[in-house]
Amino acid sequence: MGSDDAYTLTAAEALAKIRSGELTIEAYARSLLRRIDVRDADVGAWAYLNKDYILQQAKALDKVPMKDRGPLHGMPIAVKDVIYTKDMPTAHNSPIYKNDFPKLDAASIILLRHAGVLFLVADAPLLLPSSGKTTTAEFAASYTGPASTRNPHNPSRTPGGSSSGSGAAVGDLQAPVALGTQTGGSTIRPGSFNGVYAFKPTWNAVSREGLKVSSLMLDTIGIFARGVDDLELVSDAFALRDDEPSHFNGIKGARFALCKTVVWPIAGEGTRNAIARAVDILRAQGAEVDEIDLPAEFDNLPRWHNVVLQTEGETCFLPEHRTAKDQLSPQLVGYVERKAGYDHREQLKAMDGIAALRPKIDEIAGRYTAILTPSAVDEAPEGIEWTGDAAFCSGWSALHTPVVNIPGFQGLTGMPIGVSLVAGRYRDRHLLKVAKEVGKLFEAEGGWKRRL
Amino acid sequence: MGSDDAYTLTAAEALAKIRSGELTIEAYARSLLRRIDVRDADVGAWAYLNKDYILQQAKALDKVPMKDRGPLHGMPIAVKDVIYTKDMPTAHNSPIYKNDFPKLDAASIILLRHAGVLFLVADAPLLLPSSGKTTTAEFAASYTGPASTRNPHNPSRTPGGSSSGSGAAVGDLQAPVALGTQTGGSTIRPGSFNGVYAFKPTWNAVSREGLKVSSLMLDTIGIFARGVDDLELVSDAFALRDDEPSHFNGIKGARFALCKTVVWPIAGEGTRNAIARAVDILRAQGAEVDEIDLPAEFDNLPRWHNVVLQTEGETCFLPEHRTAKDQLSPQLVGYVERKAGYDHREQLKAMDGIAALRPKIDEIAGRYTAILTPSAVDEAPEGIEWTGDAAFCSGWSALHTPVVNIPGFQGLTGMPIGVSLVAGRYRDRHLLKVAKEVGKLFEAEGGWKRRL
Repeated sequence: MGSDDAYTLTAAEALAKIRSGELTIEAYARSLLRRIDVRDADVGAWAYLNKDYILQQAKALDKVPMKDRGPLHGMPIAVKDVIYTKDMPTAHNSPIYKNDFPKLDAASIILLRHAGVLFLVADAPLLLPSSGKTTTAEFAASYTGPASTRNPHNPSRTPGGSSSGSGAAVGDLQAPVALGTQTGGSTIRPGSFNGVYAFKPTWNAVSREGLKVSSLMLDTIGIFARGVDDLELVSDAFALRDDEPSHFNGIKGARFALCKTVVWPIAGEGTRNAIARAVDILRAQGAEVDEIDLPAEFDNLPRWHNVVLQTEGETCFLPEHRTAKDQLSPQLVGYVERKAGYDHREQLKAMDGIAALRPKIDEIAGRYTAILTPSAVDEAPEGIEWTGDAAFCSGWSALHTPVVNIPGFQGLTGMPIGVSLVAGRYRDRHLLKVAKEVGKLFEAEGGWKRRL
Repeated sequence: MGSDDAYTLTAAEALAKIRSGELTIEAYARSLLRRIDVRDADVGAWAYLNKDYILQQAKALDKVPMKDRGPLHGMPIAVKDVIYTKDMPTAHNSPIYKNDFPKLDAASIILLRHAGVLFLVADAPLLLPSSGKTTTAEFAASYTGPASTRNPHNPSRTPGGSSSGSGAAVGDLQAPVALGTQTGGSTIRPGSFNGVYAFKPTWNAVSREGLKVSSLMLDTIGIFARGVDDLELVSDAFALRDDEPSHFNGIKGARFALCKTVVWPIAGEGTRNAIARAVDILRAQGAEVDEIDLPAEFDNLPRWHNVVLQTEGETCFLPEHRTAKDQLSPQLVGYVERKAGYDHREQLKAMDGIAALRPKIDEIAGRYTAILTPSAVDEAPEGIEWTGDAAFCSGWSALHTPVVNIPGFQGLTGMPIGVSLVAGRYRDRHLLKVAKEVGKLFEAEGGWKRRL
């Protein structure tokens, strides 16, 4: 494979070639930029892309001696445009912030820059070549999709949201890895719709500093990639660690809980088939899969998630409402104006109710290797204005558990569908270890193949 | 009173004079700047002060027609230097961020700017005259005091921390109002030490966007003033509201719970006397004061608060640890390196344990007009390197309840001492209403008089 095709590599594969001298960072960047050139008109994943700046950084990174390089040296990463980066604008897909350029790096960005440029001298601000900013639904909070981003597997369909551009860019081989966020299902759902791995770590395991706040109790950073190795690379940079090493040692003898959740009745045929196939594959490999019903109190999660989302949104979007209400979507205006009528009493009941469920789900998850659960209602719906339903994700967002979307299945029209694995809080590394083995199986036997 | 003495006014008093045409905003600003000139060498409250810029803004605000003015038009406010302001640097009292100037307004700053310049045309960026940035302990998170800030009532003593400059500036009449933050006791304690009102609203009732994160579950914005009217003005700008109007109608017949808390054994003589005097004053006015013991599970709060503080600090300060460990205080390095040995299991036990107490304290507080509790161990200790103990505040910070420090008492050396009133979550406006009446009594009969 020549460097022309470098865009097809996972980050782990590309970094190995860079380390061996087989691939320069500049050639890698040029390959990705060519891919973007070819595909951008169809996919529209980028909110901001400064090619000259990317190449300038890539060349500078190539000049760093091998011995002085950090663990992610030269790894391109797409960044959802609600995460502050001091060298690129941050516009939140909102006209209010159209020309905003805060000179501030989010905590996650600081950590990634550091992993890429570990031994550069301090007065040479040569930075990780973030491939640019990917698009997002307004503030990562509204359901109004950015009309510019399309599903790379079928441009008449949504890539999901709100991390639309991040999911589409990785799904379309325009970036190996991307950062997104999740408040309801904004990482796991686009992961499923774009046929990629998507990882929502335990809430607050990665510092939220520098992500536009939509809901303090729900917002989490998310990571997209086309392999679990890449999720692990970024997890290393974020210092994610479990209390104990994972005892997982293969699918045979592992014990999975199938948790269809209270919203299962809305699951479409694609998701029902994917879950059935996933169970069959795991059992065929010698795993035990037990269907479980969560205790009845978990049935409150969809409503409680919505109450927290709207009432915290009231607080978070008050500044924009005060200063530029006419440029805010009706949905966010509705949060601030309490259109749903939720008062503080209901907010506290929801917050306290969810908080009481968290140790319970940890206890339940602790009995299994992982929980298997749907990622989305079905394959990506037609149209790009609506980014799809987060119903299968929002409960886990509220519970703060880590979740990984694993691709490999397909819907009735052949669009990708993923399923989720879930573990208890702060079992992120265990979950990735399980996801790596499960992912190999689902990608091989699930029925869907990436044709991009 | 001439405009020379305008610095002695509360914000509510000054705004009334500005509205009546008796005082210009420029004259008010000049009065405060003269006060700062005279006192700055002794107090050292300011991290950044651009006098020309303040006067330029003041003059512009004076030109705005009365009918076009917002509710806080011309109100000067000091801002703790961990809160982003797009027109001033933000340095967190850390050498890592010494020359940092993110072009970003915190949510609270957007709301205050808007209240000051409501009807200015959009292309004329004439701003609320924030009087500058006040000092803070490093990242509002370490106990290392900024050696520059001294207690205005006795420069050999600490003003408290971490909102050191905010408390000292208001206590010393250098600003009528200030914004701080509280994670342990960083608003209430400097309120007590500087002889001013200090208000920690319900956690997340005011958007935390744009405050440097130290602990997601604990950080709250705080407000300093020399009168409850001023706390109410800022609360209006922040749209703080209770579900129901307060039924409080005077001290007579009101019912207070005296809650000494599990850390009472460390209370000094000054605080013991203040609490005893407060109880006597309330009873003399016809209020009932019942001493209560919180259920035994609340005894875990000091330890749980510390576990959350340190484990969330591990996440929050990882970026600085990775990139500039040698410029981070040993305390924060210790958080990141888990010197205390707390693992995720202990973190979750503490977080879930505190979460379970929150509805319980709401229920207990709901039986009373307010809870009366100490604000600090005693009057401000000698020296300025250590900003004092947050033991009486940290439990309420963890419980997310609103707290108001009320000045009026004094310690053995005559330094100010305050006591706290606490209500259940989202009863902020009720609490302020009670604090206003209680404050009149304590200021009149508590024994301490401001001599600045």
